[in-house]
Amino acid sequence: MFVLGIDPGLSRCGYGAVRRERGVSSAISAGVITTPPGDPLPRRLSALLAELRRLLAELAPDVVVVERVLFQANARTAMSVGQASGMALVAAAEMGCPVVQYSPNEVKQSVAGYGAATKEQVQRMVQSLLSLPERPRPPDTADALALALCHLAAAPLLQRAAEAQR
Amino acid sequence: MFVLGIDPGLSRCGYGAVRRERGVSSAISAGVITTPPGDPLPRRLSALLAELRRLLAELAPDVVVVERVLFQANARTAMSVGQASGMALVAAAEMGCPVVQYSPNEVKQSVAGYGAATKEQVQRMVQSLLSLPERPRPPDTADALALALCHLAAAPLLQRAAEAQR
Repeated sequence: MFVLGIDPGLSRCGYGAVRRERGVSSAISAGVITTPPGDPLPRRLSALLAELRRLLAELAPDVVVVERVLFQANARTAMSVGQASGMALVAAAEMGCPVVQYSPNEVKQSVAGYGAATKEQVQRMVQSLLSLPERPRPPDTADALALALCHLAAAPLLQRAAEAQR
Repeated sequence: MFVLGIDPGLSRCGYGAVRRERGVSSAISAGVITTPPGDPLPRRLSALLAELRRLLAELAPDVVVVERVLFQANARTAMSVGQASGMALVAAAEMGCPVVQYSPNEVKQSVAGYGAATKEQVQRMVQSLLSLPERPRPPDTADALALALCHLAAAPLLQRAAEAQR
C-alpha cells in the first residue's frame, strides 16, 4: 500500500509518501510546498493546487491522507488552513484518489501512542518507524509522514471492520 | 463593469452578478450552488469547484468579489467556509479573473450604511439598489448581490486612489 500524507498549509504544505510492503514501511518522498506570502491569495492557492496535482500525478498513491483541523487558535490561520486543505482534497478528488482524514490527536495517538505527544516526540517516532538516518525536517514533513503512517496502521483495522459489517 | 459576488459556503454557496452601465446597476444572474451534505467532503468540494468554473465561464465577469470571513463562532463551519472560499478564489485565478475580497462588515457598511445591519436590512437595500420587484431570496443570494454592489461602489474610489499614487 502506497500512502501520501498531506499536512495542509498555505505558506508551508508538508507532504510525505510511505510505501508498506511485507510489513515494512519506507519513506519514498517527502518535502514541503511553499507559496510566496507576498503573492495575492488566489495566486497562492492556484500555485498550491498545481503543485499538489503534479505531486499526485507523479506519485500516484493508493490513498491520500489529509490532516483534519477542527480548531485553530488564530481565526486568520484557520481560514488559510481551511483553504489549503480544500486544495488537497480537491486535487485528490480530481485524480479519483480515495481520501482519508485524521485529526492531529489521532495521528499522535497512532504514531507516538499518546494524543498529546510533542512535535519532537512525533519526529523521533517517525524517524524510528521509517528507519531514517536522522529526524525528518522540517516538522511539516514529519507531520505528513506521520499522517501516512497513521493510515497504514489504521487501514487493516478499517478493512477488518468493513468486512465484519458485510 | 460586470461584477460577480460569491458568498462562499459548502452546503449553500450564493452568487450574484451585477452589471453597472451609465450609473445604473442591474442584477443579471443570481442563485445558490448546493452540494449534498451526505456526499464525501472531497466530492462536494470538487462539485462546487466545477459549478463555480462553469458559472465563471458562462458569465465572464470583469471582477469576482468573494466574502472574506475572518471569524466563525463554529470551528467546524470555519473550516468548510475556508474550503469553499478557496474553491471560489482558485476558480477565479484559473480564469485569470481579478479577485477582490471584502469583510461582511465592509459590505453591510457599503450597502446599508451601517456595519452591523441585519440580514433583512441588507436584503431590503439590495432590492432597492437593484430595483428588484421583491427581496432577493434565499439570503445567500442577497449577500452575494450585496458583495457585487459593494465593489461597484468602492471601485471608482479604489481607481482614484491608485491614480493619485502614480
